[in-house]
Amino acid sequence: MALDGARAKTASGGRGRVTITDIARRAGVSVPTVSRVVNGRSDVSPGTRARVEELLRRHGYRKRAAAPGRRAALLDLVFNDLDSPWAVEIIRGVEEVAHAAGVGTVVSAVHGRSGDAPRWMRNLRARASDGVVLVTSALDPVLHQELRILGVPLVVVDPAGSPALDVPTVGAANREGGTAATEHLLALGHRRIGLIAGPPRLLCSRARRDGYRAALEGAGVAVDESLIVPGDFRHESGFAACEALLALPEPPTAVFAASDQMALGAIEALRRRGARVPQDMSVVGFDDLPEVRWSAPPLTTVRQPLADMGRVAARTVLRLTRDEDPDPPRAELGTELILRASTAPPPGIATPSG
Amino acid sequence: MALDGARAKTASGGRGRVTITDIARRAGVSVPTVSRVVNGRSDVSPGTRARVEELLRRHGYRKRAAAPGRRAALLDLVFNDLDSPWAVEIIRGVEEVAHAAGVGTVVSAVHGRSGDAPRWMRNLRARASDGVVLVTSALDPVLHQELRILGVPLVVVDPAGSPALDVPTVGAANREGGTAATEHLLALGHRRIGLIAGPPRLLCSRARRDGYRAALEGAGVAVDESLIVPGDFRHESGFAACEALLALPEPPTAVFAASDQMALGAIEALRRRGARVPQDMSVVGFDDLPEVRWSAPPLTTVRQPLADMGRVAARTVLRLTRDEDPDPPRAELGTELILRASTAPPPGIATPSG
Repeated sequence: MALDGARAKTASGGRGRVTITDIARRAGVSVPTVSRVVNGRSDVSPGTRARVEELLRRHGYRKRAAAPGRRAALLDLVFNDLDSPWAVEIIRGVEEVAHAAGVGTVVSAVHGRSGDAPRWMRNLRARASDGVVLVTSALDPVLHQELRILGVPLVVVDPAGSPALDVPTVGAANREGGTAATEHLLALGHRRIGLIAGPPRLLCSRARRDGYRAALEGAGVAVDESLIVPGDFRHESGFAACEALLALPEPPTAVFAASDQMALGAIEALRRRGARVPQDMSVVGFDDLPEVRWSAPPLTTVRQPLADMGRVAARTVLRLTRDEDPDPPRAELGTELILRASTAPPPGIATPSG
Repeated sequence: MALDGARAKTASGGRGRVTITDIARRAGVSVPTVSRVVNGRSDVSPGTRARVEELLRRHGYRKRAAAPGRRAALLDLVFNDLDSPWAVEIIRGVEEVAHAAGVGTVVSAVHGRSGDAPRWMRNLRARASDGVVLVTSALDPVLHQELRILGVPLVVVDPAGSPALDVPTVGAANREGGTAATEHLLALGHRRIGLIAGPPRLLCSRARRDGYRAALEGAGVAVDESLIVPGDFRHESGFAACEALLALPEPPTAVFAASDQMALGAIEALRRRGARVPQDMSVVGFDDLPEVRWSAPPLTTVRQPLADMGRVAARTVLRLTRDEDPDPPRAELGTELILRASTAPPPGIATPSG
């Protein structure tokens, strides 16, 4: 990709960095005009803006950091939605690292609405944020381009899709987590194990599902596609998926839900039918949100270190603002099976020691 | 209070505002020295700093707003801790209003640790934040003073203590909520109703407890002090308080917990004893966190409009940054009893219609 080459060159060369003056000369406009485009001001004609933006892109222009002391550092932490306890865990990790470095954490939600992302981009430009941590968003290529033009470092947490995106990412060992959850159920004696999966477009969903399949195959249990029901990570979809599994001619004796919220939805579907967890059906979640220690029963789940993911992302973006290379560019933090009270051997099979 | 008088005068007079030059002349130091004190820089001797700060305080100095266009607006949203789903609801409301106004929401946690508040204050000064929304913090009088010196507008959400504090506050109708929860249990036929209360130093805890007492008294039921057990709003304390209530010679048949998290802790204590909710014991919470629709059983609770409280706080602080008076200075948003599945008539009393 031409753009990548240009950026890599300026980044590695260091001194060959293109300036606003260069761009102004090439575009045949004044330096203040280029500055207005770079800073997202509206008082530039559309034709001029397009010409200047094209040149900024072609020459891999990166905005210089503000003069020290002029204003304090900020980083932007962007979610699709602020509607889950999941978000507060990430915020906690990012804020902890940023706060200690004297950097403010600006939290935004773009709501996946088409109008919100450009507005966020304008706000980001206006406050001259030093870095961006983007969480579980399918990164709009246009936004990515704009961030690159502004020279704002970007780190993606829990990357949604394409691992080919040339930005540092911080994720969890989703595949290993899916394997650990399924192997735990197999070890308890379950053979018909349902999967309430996440949205297939997300990398983390596919990795958890692959881990589930690998565990079954490793145990010589054939994968039954009718036992895999998709959800959207929310409670409601876990409830509906569990009802679908219970309606099968031969329902599973255990369910692995790819998020804690879907696991709680599944438990509610079982409770409404008068089925007991874990005596009648075992349930394993994924995330280890703080509240699932207090679900009824406390949930066996795969711990995803959300606050740590936030900490690593913040450290990485802060290193990038100092023009240091992040190491490693793709961090994958370990997941861990947490045993609580929602899993047991299948009905009719005695518990090993009572 | 002398300071209040001075501030009221400059605020209402408008033109009589004291300048850095006035302070420098009175202190016998240079204007840049005063500016360094105002901006929290460290290169000022302790003696000079103390003298200048005393003069700034005595004359009710308020820092001027940054020139428009120089940088984008920011507001600081400060929690004691980012450890509860409660926080994400408030963040959601504040961010929604701020984002729409092109203002960035800087989220911080001060952890109630003595070292963190001064560090946060330094960061706030350095980023020249335009306003502060402080959540449930017992406001350190020194910090309050410093914010006043900086001239940064402040709004307190869910005020912890003294409503005498002369800043706008946004709270919920806690007393009415406590009354509604208790009246609901009384109407079901309960007479021995336990209260798992919040920390008594907090205004909201006292208001919920007062509502509980008022409902009992209104129904002619004597308040039994042994049925009131304090907690700290967290799951663990609800668990312990419920165990204490169950250990009484004559345990209650219903419990009102002053937070959802304590209610879930109480349900877990009951579950471990094999007691069913609501057949053996009814439980009512307070907050209506999104996840309690999915607890087992779904929780009857008092809805506190957390996101709305965040929205009102953000609107108020934005009005203050434009030097408009907030109206009203003390907002109290309504609470609402949400009936779900965790309450029923006491054991031995038939449900009205099956």
